Amino acid sequence: MNHLVDARKLKRPVPQALLDELKALFGDRCSTTLAMREHHGRDESSYDPMLPDAVVFAHSTEEVAAFVKLCSQYDTPIIPYGAGTSLEGHVLALQGGVTVDLSQMNQVLAVHAEDLTATVQAGVTRKQLNQEIKDTGLFFPIDPGADASLGGMASTRASGTNAVRYGTMKENTLTLTVVTAQGEIIKTGTRAKKSSAGYDLTRVYVGSEGTLGIITEVTVRLYPQPEAISAAICSFPTVADAVNTVIQTIQMGVPLARVELLDENGVRAINAHDKLSLPVNPLLLFEFHGSENGVKEQAELVQDIAKEFHALGFEWATRPEDRTRLWTARHNAYFALLQLRPGARAISTDCCVPISRLAECVLATKADCEEQGLTHAIIGHVGDGNFHVQMMVDPNDPADIARAEGVNQRMVARAIGMDGTCTGEHGVGLHKMDFLIQEHGEGAIAVMRAIKHALDPKNIMNPGKILRWEQ
Amino acid sequence: MNHLVDARKLKRPVPQALLDELKALFGDRCSTTLAMREHHGRDESSYDPMLPDAVVFAHSTEEVAAFVKLCSQYDTPIIPYGAGTSLEGHVLALQGGVTVDLSQMNQVLAVHAEDLTATVQAGVTRKQLNQEIKDTGLFFPIDPGADASLGGMASTRASGTNAVRYGTMKENTLTLTVVTAQGEIIKTGTRAKKSSAGYDLTRVYVGSEGTLGIITEVTVRLYPQPEAISAAICSFPTVADAVNTVIQTIQMGVPLARVELLDENGVRAINAHDKLSLPVNPLLLFEFHGSENGVKEQAELVQDIAKEFHALGFEWATRPEDRTRLWTARHNAYFALLQLRPGARAISTDCCVPISRLAECVLATKADCEEQGLTHAIIGHVGDGNFHVQMMVDPNDPADIARAEGVNQRMVARAIGMDGTCTGEHGVGLHKMDFLIQEHGEGAIAVMRAIKHALDPKNIMNPGKILRWEQ
Repeated sequence: MNHLVDARKLKRPVPQALLDELKALFGDRCSTTLAMREHHGRDESSYDPMLPDAVVFAHSTEEVAAFVKLCSQYDTPIIPYGAGTSLEGHVLALQGGVTVDLSQMNQVLAVHAEDLTATVQAGVTRKQLNQEIKDTGLFFPIDPGADASLGGMASTRASGTNAVRYGTMKENTLTLTVVTAQGEIIKTGTRAKKSSAGYDLTRVYVGSEGTLGIITEVTVRLYPQPEAISAAICSFPTVADAVNTVIQTIQMGVPLARVELLDENGVRAINAHDKLSLPVNPLLLFEFHGSENGVKEQAELVQDIAKEFHALGFEWATRPEDRTRLWTARHNAYFALLQLRPGARAISTDCCVPISRLAECVLATKADCEEQGLTHAIIGHVGDGNFHVQMMVDPNDPADIARAEGVNQRMVARAIGMDGTCTGEHGVGLHKMDFLIQEHGEGAIAVMRAIKHALDPKNIMNPGKILRWEQ
Repeated sequence: MNHLVDARKLKRPVPQALLDELKALFGDRCSTTLAMREHHGRDESSYDPMLPDAVVFAHSTEEVAAFVKLCSQYDTPIIPYGAGTSLEGHVLALQGGVTVDLSQMNQVLAVHAEDLTATVQAGVTRKQLNQEIKDTGLFFPIDPGADASLGGMASTRASGTNAVRYGTMKENTLTLTVVTAQGEIIKTGTRAKKSSAGYDLTRVYVGSEGTLGIITEVTVRLYPQPEAISAAICSFPTVADAVNTVIQTIQMGVPLARVELLDENGVRAINAHDKLSLPVNPLLLFEFHGSENGVKEQAELVQDIAKEFHALGFEWATRPEDRTRLWTARHNAYFALLQLRPGARAISTDCCVPISRLAECVLATKADCEEQGLTHAIIGHVGDGNFHVQMMVDPNDPADIARAEGVNQRMVARAIGMDGTCTGEHGVGLHKMDFLIQEHGEGAIAVMRAIKHALDPKNIMNPGKILRWEQ
């Protein structure tokens, strides 16, 4: 299934001389086997694989810099690769070239617990980081579901369930080490909590999806583990009631740590996959962080609001194992949903709107899925106005795929019409490029393109993603 | 007093033809009088004025765009001007040119209370915005002290007393309308709370100090007014005790709304200026926001920590008028300090370090001021690791100025050595340009320069600030 791109037209040849030099530099860590290329030519999107010509495994920033210098010399495309969990085709080798896999750059370089910061190599995953710092009493909150690498999360400006309270990678990245398209190593900032010292290079690279440089080290903010955590689930008769509960909670300034929506299809799927017996109704999962009293206050307030919107009962999960079970089910939703339609592949998309428009946007999108007869679910980080539609399609049925793409296009147009964005957290990759113009306008895209041309004049950094090189 | 720059060498001529066209376009709102040029050729820094050749007052984004197109046609420098409250020479017409004053663009364009956002023209000041939204139950927290314009605050990535809780302009700007150096009008984002849709143009322009484009509209986040606010002051025998109290409070994750340090000189100054009778000791001013219980919990925790560090008593200011009196005194500190040495001018500088290094950095800087025999005070937003040194110097005594500059240079080197930044919130302007290289390294500066060259190829946007055009 390759619904948007014909990569073969775009392929740039990779000279044997470059491959020879890479083999000399990386030895066994440079591979051109089909299996390795296939593994790196796909992500968790619905795109057919597009294979790089070779894959190298880097162990240090200096190796990445040497690698980039070589590729630049041969005008060869470079695709950075972390955990391969992206959803919009980010790591596909659209124009061929060499993939640099950073997963073996997996050292936690420094934990400054007293400053609430940690510095890691790009291949460290969020779970690994949290494992390594668990004795400090601190934690790293950003949680996009998948056990993504921190470099990948910075590159795609990832967020997820905790963002409503703790922000996204944009807010939680203090500084980066980046290898530029020229193979220079730079630091984009310092460990100071704030700075007015010139252009915000950290935010230039966060979310740039490997198109401007390669992030090799990330310094992130950590947070004290909350004194108290409690979680609750609450079913509603309609999606509208659930979403309106969230809207009012946010407007009242309740500092929710997480609030996730699953529509009735989502609930049905996780019931089956995780052997739960939740009522098959739209569901909100809440998590509260704070002092014992603070958590109690928040939860009472939310319970009162939920009642106004016809809540079908508020159920507590105070024991850690119950909380873990619920959040594991939520995180498995992607795979659980796939099992709603055996043999199907998922088209997963997201958008984000100002919170006051959330109910309207969710309901219209859901109605559209139903009209199109698509097996689907809506799940989302609704506290931020961000939600996902996952549509299970037959990969061999172009009409089915076209129906799903139609829903996606109309959802994005709807979100943009509400002064929202075509992607809250998945990123642009290949799948949202045209929507980017729709959202930002040609003038803003021209500014983005000017930045791309200035920082990557040979168009070797993950070429063909986010922006087209020419207008 | 003009301790770093000889502007006359850099002056670019402004053709009469341009002035004629500007008069035709702006009528009475284009001025070349000396008084008007003098008013716009200075800020609150210690630099001697550097006058623009003309000043225009814009009323709309479209007028700004037309103005930029004209100036671009004549390769003429443009200096955007808001409230004129910057501290590092940002608005000085280093190379001559035309200043565009945005203070009459002072309309609050939209308040979306239900989304917690407001969109304003760039000339709206923070106090004006808070006045206009006070009946919504919301407020805009960023408070750099001066009643700065929102456009100026975005341009300098301003923060101030509330940043420890609510973040800076970086976190609180959702989207901007910008006029590019080519005179195109762009929007940098949407009102969605988060987005992964391409390069983060909002953060490219926030903090770019008018060197990449002119911010004409700003959409900011608003917050529900807290249910309860309380403030307290606490004196300490030493600056070290005060700072260590803050460090421990932050490390414990107490969500302070504000925590300000004034050293004994700062206290002496505001006592005199605001007719207070605070003990002449290092002082912390705290503000707590939250629920009634939450505020009480926070305050009790902080009080316990302060006791460990020899606090000389914790005094509450629960009545709004007492709080206002204290915060007014804090905000007047700049002017109060000037009166410590009549006839003097202030050199005010700032830096920001990881919180664990704060005490060390403050104490070494204070010792340096004392060794140099400078009339000075240290005040700061210590919860962020950010502090200011204000030195009162004789504007006619080059040796005095050199002593102050020496303190500044050593403070910056110290902060950078601690993985901190040469400016936490004042910005670069003219005063911190050399430190920028020291902080970021030539490689990162080259990336900043590439962005500047790409977005402002004629070098007309506030030229000579932040970066030199050539290496």
